[in-house]
Amino acid sequence: MTRILIDNVDYLLTVDQHDNILEHASVVIEDTRIAAVDRADAIAARYQGSHFDRVIDGRRTLLMPGLIEAHVHLSEQLSRGLFPDSLTTRPWVFNWAKPFYAAVDEEAEHWSVLLACLEMIKTGTTCFLDMGSQNDAGITVQAAAQAGMRGITGRHAADVKPEVIPPYWTPEMVAHHFFRDADEALAALETCVKRWNGYADGRIRCWVNIEGKEPCSPELHRGARELAERLGVGTTYHIASSIEEARLSEQKYGLWPVERLERIGALGPNLVLAHVVAIKEHEIALLAQRGTKVAFCPGTSLKIAKGATRIGKYPEMLAAGVTVALGCDGVSASGALDMTRQLYLAAGLFKDARMDAAMIPARQAIRMATIEGARALLWDDEIGSVEVGKRADLILFDLNQVEWVPCNDPVQTLVYAATGSSVKHSIINGTLVMENRRVLTLNEAEVIEQARRLTERVVARSGLKRGQIPITTSLYD
Amino acid sequence: MTRILIDNVDYLLTVDQHDNILEHASVVIEDTRIAAVDRADAIAARYQGSHFDRVIDGRRTLLMPGLIEAHVHLSEQLSRGLFPDSLTTRPWVFNWAKPFYAAVDEEAEHWSVLLACLEMIKTGTTCFLDMGSQNDAGITVQAAAQAGMRGITGRHAADVKPEVIPPYWTPEMVAHHFFRDADEALAALETCVKRWNGYADGRIRCWVNIEGKEPCSPELHRGARELAERLGVGTTYHIASSIEEARLSEQKYGLWPVERLERIGALGPNLVLAHVVAIKEHEIALLAQRGTKVAFCPGTSLKIAKGATRIGKYPEMLAAGVTVALGCDGVSASGALDMTRQLYLAAGLFKDARMDAAMIPARQAIRMATIEGARALLWDDEIGSVEVGKRADLILFDLNQVEWVPCNDPVQTLVYAATGSSVKHSIINGTLVMENRRVLTLNEAEVIEQARRLTERVVARSGLKRGQIPITTSLYD
Repeated sequence: MTRILIDNVDYLLTVDQHDNILEHASVVIEDTRIAAVDRADAIAARYQGSHFDRVIDGRRTLLMPGLIEAHVHLSEQLSRGLFPDSLTTRPWVFNWAKPFYAAVDEEAEHWSVLLACLEMIKTGTTCFLDMGSQNDAGITVQAAAQAGMRGITGRHAADVKPEVIPPYWTPEMVAHHFFRDADEALAALETCVKRWNGYADGRIRCWVNIEGKEPCSPELHRGARELAERLGVGTTYHIASSIEEARLSEQKYGLWPVERLERIGALGPNLVLAHVVAIKEHEIALLAQRGTKVAFCPGTSLKIAKGATRIGKYPEMLAAGVTVALGCDGVSASGALDMTRQLYLAAGLFKDARMDAAMIPARQAIRMATIEGARALLWDDEIGSVEVGKRADLILFDLNQVEWVPCNDPVQTLVYAATGSSVKHSIINGTLVMENRRVLTLNEAEVIEQARRLTERVVARSGLKRGQIPITTSLYD
Repeated sequence: MTRILIDNVDYLLTVDQHDNILEHASVVIEDTRIAAVDRADAIAARYQGSHFDRVIDGRRTLLMPGLIEAHVHLSEQLSRGLFPDSLTTRPWVFNWAKPFYAAVDEEAEHWSVLLACLEMIKTGTTCFLDMGSQNDAGITVQAAAQAGMRGITGRHAADVKPEVIPPYWTPEMVAHHFFRDADEALAALETCVKRWNGYADGRIRCWVNIEGKEPCSPELHRGARELAERLGVGTTYHIASSIEEARLSEQKYGLWPVERLERIGALGPNLVLAHVVAIKEHEIALLAQRGTKVAFCPGTSLKIAKGATRIGKYPEMLAAGVTVALGCDGVSASGALDMTRQLYLAAGLFKDARMDAAMIPARQAIRMATIEGARALLWDDEIGSVEVGKRADLILFDLNQVEWVPCNDPVQTLVYAATGSSVKHSIINGTLVMENRRVLTLNEAEVIEQARRLTERVVARSGLKRGQIPITTSLYD
């Protein structure tokens, strides 16, 4: 057994049921799990004479559960800065992201995932729900395992091509991107889950993930959830991700997206819906009844004009008891994979938009980025809080960084002042993956160099710099 | 003459009239000014055989003008995290900030300013407009000069006490905080400007700053602007900083705050108004006509529920030709003195709130944080862009930091991905003040230690942790 002591942290945010915060506290890790959490003097007394393989000095740090990223596209990482910031969701997805994703070959995807893991580790994320690989899910699974991360991925799947294929979609892209029908897609996803779920001693899970929305048939929406249930895993996809999508749904089916999902039997407790910005009051009740989870991505809302602060009803979902987690989405959608930014935005945006300072207090935002994220990922039995028996996924912030000085209150300072750059150490599944900001699982310089090299190739192949790519679209209308 | 070469930066954002961006560019600094800006090979040819006192390797960096902070409270720095995040503007100011500010004695203010300068330097700010010292302006002037910053400060002044002094305001605080009347205040401010304006070879300026709003008489609002004009400097204060303030103004005077300023003759081109969130369409035209500037503080709007995304009309001000700069405000108001966050919020908030991706493009947000900031501070003849003849206030971002990888477009990546933590070097007035993230002008550990020590004293004296401080207020109603 390997035993680690994290000794005498200034503040320990347990994010347990009572949001207990301990001062001058210590944590003992035995192998992959948390064995003890208490005041430093109590731990010292209890473990007097015990051997520790490693002691981490916790003075001038804040310890908390690792941040949980509930919606990310690891295969999007090489596109940072490529798309203009004048796109709304549908042209962003159909005119820009699809050609880009299709150009991500296996080698590019491997390094894209490693680069994304590097950014997540450096900013305090210890677990992710990835929308899925553009190629075999094994690429993401193995790269994330190598990086030392915990996470969930799958194979990104769709089965409905637009009626007219636009000129900036290549035939190779179409062939690569769309399964023939829902049955073919579900068969591939089942193979994927069976092959990869539980990889790396259970650190990596594989779900039945699909793209969602117009590129997926009703059969695929419903089938993904049913298959996931049969396999004992979850599923996730995008829905109600823009007002345009909601209007299109109403026009075609007479129903907004979430209600339509209910009608086709697609809602359930093993489903995480990403975005859900365009939702009506009565649809919130459906999510609550079905136990369906939501991944709110405030950064994406800000960059691609989704309207979280105008039409978004995230505070209402929280009030209705819906599990609302936070996601960075991909780097092109939002900019960066820094969950501390999402934490900040979750706390601040609705205060401003509703002119109500009581909206989403700092403490609740922290829960959304930790235990509620774990709940969304169906993993809250093992992660999301610092409690005895849980897996040791922990991060320590460096309180000597100027953004933490002074620290009159750790909760306020974490949410409104701290950034991912002050994460000092990160531990995942009991293993130190970052120490003093040095990532131990990856060669940072190599990842960056390879990512730059492959970016050039992917961008050239995507055609996004060459052609005139429209910033509006009527695809799938 | 000291000559510095910054050699071969990957990207150089000039923020000149045409927003020119150079790749593989170099900059030559002679003493305090920029002597040459061009492609690296052109500079190499032109300066062949010349002596440089110092060569800074610019490879894998982005160089741009230092960020300009248009509204900050350096004397608020020790309050980080102290106030709850359930306050709106008026209780925040009157119930919490005033007792805190009054407890900031001279020693605390000195270290508060140094701590704030440390945070600004580390996040890329090279120039600030401070609302003013709680004690003698010389404290801020000298500390900022010592830190190597460029900036503007003054003596924080008010002359109207509330009719009933609340129990959590001490008599000492009242005596310290309010001048007897406008004449007394203006006399003190004049002395201040005459004593300190132009300090440190002109790096530090002193203005006729007042608090503004209810705690200042019409005479003080108008008088500050007139005195500033007579002395050849500027003035700044808070106005229209909440909907409650606007409603109170309407109730008392039949006019919203900006229109009221116009009626009393207080608007003019040497005035920077902080916040201005509660404004009517016709008032925007008044600001444009008078050349009055606005400091928009998005972070404060998010934390204390001002409503930038609900009632704010910043895009309309920009369209009307009003100079709109960006500010972090103090750390209790917004969380941190990181201008990259304000840059990001300025670009993103209105896209989301208006559901219009064309709102405030990344490039415009960068201008707001640089050249428009310089214009607001009446300093654009010398700073705000990278052009020959201007003062050398420059920052270099480290493109090897993971948030910059890959960098398909430097403008997009700067605004949506970068944080202040990737600023690598900072140069102010031709002097390197931060090199490889080490601040050369200050002893970082000492500043942090002293700030922590004095925070305890100030917080204890303020009474904010002891008593039940209300989170609503009817003061000045």
